This record gives sequence, structure tokens and C-alpha cells, in this order.
Amino acid sequence: MATSVLLTGAAGRVGGAILGGLGQKYDWRLLDREPPPTETGTSSDLEYDVTNHEYIAADLSDASRVRESMTGIDVVVHLAGDPRPEAAWDSVLTNNIDGTHTIFEAALDAGVEKVIFASSNHVVGHYETERKPDIYRSSDDYRLDGTELPRPSNRYGVSKATGEIIGRFFHDEHDLSVICVRIGNLTKDHPPIDYERGQAMWLSYRDCAHLFDCCITADVDYEIVYGISDNDRKYYSIDRARERLGYSPQDNSADHAELEPRS
Amino acid sequence: MATSVLLTGAAGRVGGAILGGLGQKYDWRLLDREPPPTETGTSSDLEYDVTNHEYIAADLSDASRVRESMTGIDVVVHLAGDPRPEAAWDSVLTNNIDGTHTIFEAALDAGVEKVIFASSNHVVGHYETERKPDIYRSSDDYRLDGTELPRPSNRYGVSKATGEIIGRFFHDEHDLSVICVRIGNLTKDHPPIDYERGQAMWLSYRDCAHLFDCCITADVDYEIVYGISDNDRKYYSIDRARERLGYSPQDNSADHAELEPRS
Repeated sequence: MATSVLLTGAAGRVGGAILGGLGQKYDWRLLDREPPPTETGTSSDLEYDVTNHEYIAADLSDASRVRESMTGIDVVVHLAGDPRPEAAWDSVLTNNIDGTHTIFEAALDAGVEKVIFASSNHVVGHYETERKPDIYRSSDDYRLDGTELPRPSNRYGVSKATGEIIGRFFHDEHDLSVICVRIGNLTKDHPPIDYERGQAMWLSYRDCAHLFDCCITADVDYEIVYGISDNDRKYYSIDRARERLGYSPQDNSADHAELEPRS
Repeated sequence: MATSVLLTGAAGRVGGAILGGLGQKYDWRLLDREPPPTETGTSSDLEYDVTNHEYIAADLSDASRVRESMTGIDVVVHLAGDPRPEAAWDSVLTNNIDGTHTIFEAALDAGVEKVIFASSNHVVGHYETERKPDIYRSSDDYRLDGTELPRPSNRYGVSKATGEIIGRFFHDEHDLSVICVRIGNLTKDHPPIDYERGQAMWLSYRDCAHLFDCCITADVDYEIVYGISDNDRKYYSIDRARERLGYSPQDNSADHAELEPRS
């Protein structure tokens, strides 16, 4: 029987990349605050047809709906939350910090085996402050590897760092398997143009789907990994993702000729 | 002119130790959720006569009162919050996480130079899990030094780890001087009896006052230090506090004969 996976925030961009690559591989249940776009006609980043799967429209503040959504689930991929780096404190406190705690509580109660938490490059954004723009270039060997203390660049990053720590607590206290993926800059088809930082932390759609596939299948205790393609410009190490999860990215922002400086 | 210091959570035990040692040295303003015990006749841990100082009774959820309390303040010592290791999530989310963010926001707006944040040993409680009871004994050389990632032992510890990260953000983003003190086991007169863990992380009242004195006067960017006496049994390094803050503790739980196993 296929592994049953609950995907929260399924209607967002990361959800689209994951479902686009893995929609047929797992037994998905989707959860999002918004109803499926096909039902309401609302616009969405989602290119994937969510009507192939069970879909629950619920906010994380509705703990009993969240709890119900976990019934029979093996793995939770938790993407839901306010995704804006510039989000105000009250929003990330509620949607990202409290919401993530709600997810872990519900997962524990439902007997879920593993939670994969969408963290962010913004957890460590302030390591760049004194090193940019050199840090974004392939000539620079500086690497963050996930063992460094958080240095968030914004309140959103604070909230994601807190989510990682909530996950650490649920692993240490309750033996839940937890993987935190510090997602880089996910863009479709090609890396960000004229944006060195985005090229350094580019994550292609297919590498994104592959990485989450690795997360779902790997046997791990607690891990923090960086979610980027194998970019020449990288300043995040992907060694841990390779070693612990079997991640083997196919893309590199340097392979995209359209990124050459324009005259 | 003496440095003006706002002490939040002034009516708690740590506040009493600080004021008992430093009450005459700084220009204190006290803030606590509870009114001064002398006014109301309520019982309190406080042995220090708070009526020597300006005293503001306010909850951290009252952002405008908190903001007012910072006027003319040089340094904030932030102790307020739910101090119970077993506190429920909703309480630490509100009182410790949101409350600490309120303090940092207000400090920034008021032009405060430094915030000293009362963190906790519970931020790293799960490092002990596989090492106890050896870790609590002087024969064991294992040390935590503040560079390790948080591994909280409870939701209270999660909230204190988050407070440290909020402080890191306000330092990196706004250049506020921030010191996080992971306070051990503060008891008056003698260390905890028949409690090895408490003896390992004992903080005497005079060492507590001295450590916060060092924090108030030291010129630092961002630091995480352990707040314990110089105990033979320690598994927290105090090297960083010595080097960066000039901390020079006088006490050691091993010097207390009453701790010998009772027959």
C-alpha cells in the first residue's frame, strides 16, 4: 500500500512542485486554507489538478479539523503558513508558530510517523549580512550546513526557526521522525534572473519534488537540511541531504545561459 | 548618573536575587504583572523591598504600558513570563514568546541600548537524556557552551529558545546589544539537596546578582551564556561568561557539606 501523506498548504507553490512530481507516487491528502481553485474559480499558483485527491479546506487555527485530517496518515508534509518574508509578527506568531505546534500535536496524537517541515533560508539570512555579495558567487567557499545557530533576517525567519525547534522537541520528547527543509528560491523552468542570491539558492521544481520524495522515504531521527539545487554559487551545503536522505539534485543555476549579465 | 535599568518580572525569585545584590547600584524601574506585595498584602517570593523604586504593574500583553515603561531606560533586564517548566503551550506562546517580542519592539522604539533576556537551562534539557546521571557528576567532562542548537525539554524551553532567536534578530537587524542568560537552578543559601542535576546547575544568589551586574556593564554584541555558579558538577561551560562578561563566580555547590548523601 502506498504511503499516505498529508500535504498542508497544498495550494501553494511548493505544494505544486511536490504534487507535480510525486502526485502519482503517494496516497495524498491535501489540506489548505483555501478551497480548491477548481471549485471556486479563484486564481492560484497551483498548476496541479488537486481534484485527483482528497482535499480538506481548513485553517490551522481549527485544531479539531487539523486533527481529523491526520486520521490514517503516515507522513505529514507541513508547508502551510504565512509565506511572506515581510509578514507581520502577529501573522507569523499565529499562522507559523502556533500553527506548526498544532500540526505537531495533531501528528503525535494521530500516531503519524514523520513530519517534514518546510523551513526557510530566512532562518539564517543574517549570516549573509557581512559577506554579500561575495557569498553568492562560486569563488566563495563559505558554507552553512545546518549546524549553525539561527540568525533570521525577518520575523518570518524567526517563526521558521521556532518551527524547527518545535520539531526538535517533538522528536526528542516523543520520538517522532522530523526533517526540516530550509527551502531556497523555488522557481519554475529557470533560476531567478539578475538576482545572484536567488541563483545561489535556486531550487528547481524537479529537485524540489525529488528532495521531498527523499524526505518521505528516508529513515531519519531529526534532520535540518538545505533545499537547493546543486548550484555552483551555493553557500548552503547539501552534503547532509545527500548523506542522510539520498538527495541527488539534477539542476544547477550555472547551466542556464539566460542568466548571463545582460548588456 | 547611574545606568537606568528596567527590570521586568521584578517580583519573581530571579528579580529578588538581582535586586538584593544590586538594588543600590543602578537606577531601577520595576515592572511586574502583580502589584507590589506591600500594597496588596499578597504573598510573594520577593524579599527585597520594592517600594524603594518606581514600580509599574502591567502585563506584557499591554503593549502601550510596556512601551511607556521604557522611557529613559538604558538597559532592560527581561525576566517576565510564565516560569513553569510544565507550562502549557498557550501560556508560553502568549507570555513568553509574544511577550518577549513585545519587549524587544518596545526597547527598540525607545532607544534602549541593551536587553538582557532570562533564558533557561530548559532550552537544552534534552542533551541530558542519553547522558544522565553521569552528566551531573564532576567526573564527566561533557560541556554545553551555548554554540549548540537548542534541544528543549518542554514547551517552556521552546519558548525560551524562541526568545533567544528573537533577540538575535533584533541584534542583527537593529544593532541592539543582547545577552541571553540560560539560568540554572537558583536557590538561596545552599544548593538543592538530594538533586544532582540541581547541584550541577546551581546558581547562588550572589553569583546571580554578580552575573547580571556583568551583563549590565559589559560591552557586547550578542551573547548566549550559562548562568550557574562554578560548580564541580557543572556540564555548562561558564568560559564564555568569564571571557565576554567578566563573570567571576564565588560559589560552588561542592562546598556545601549538607549535600552529602544522608544515611
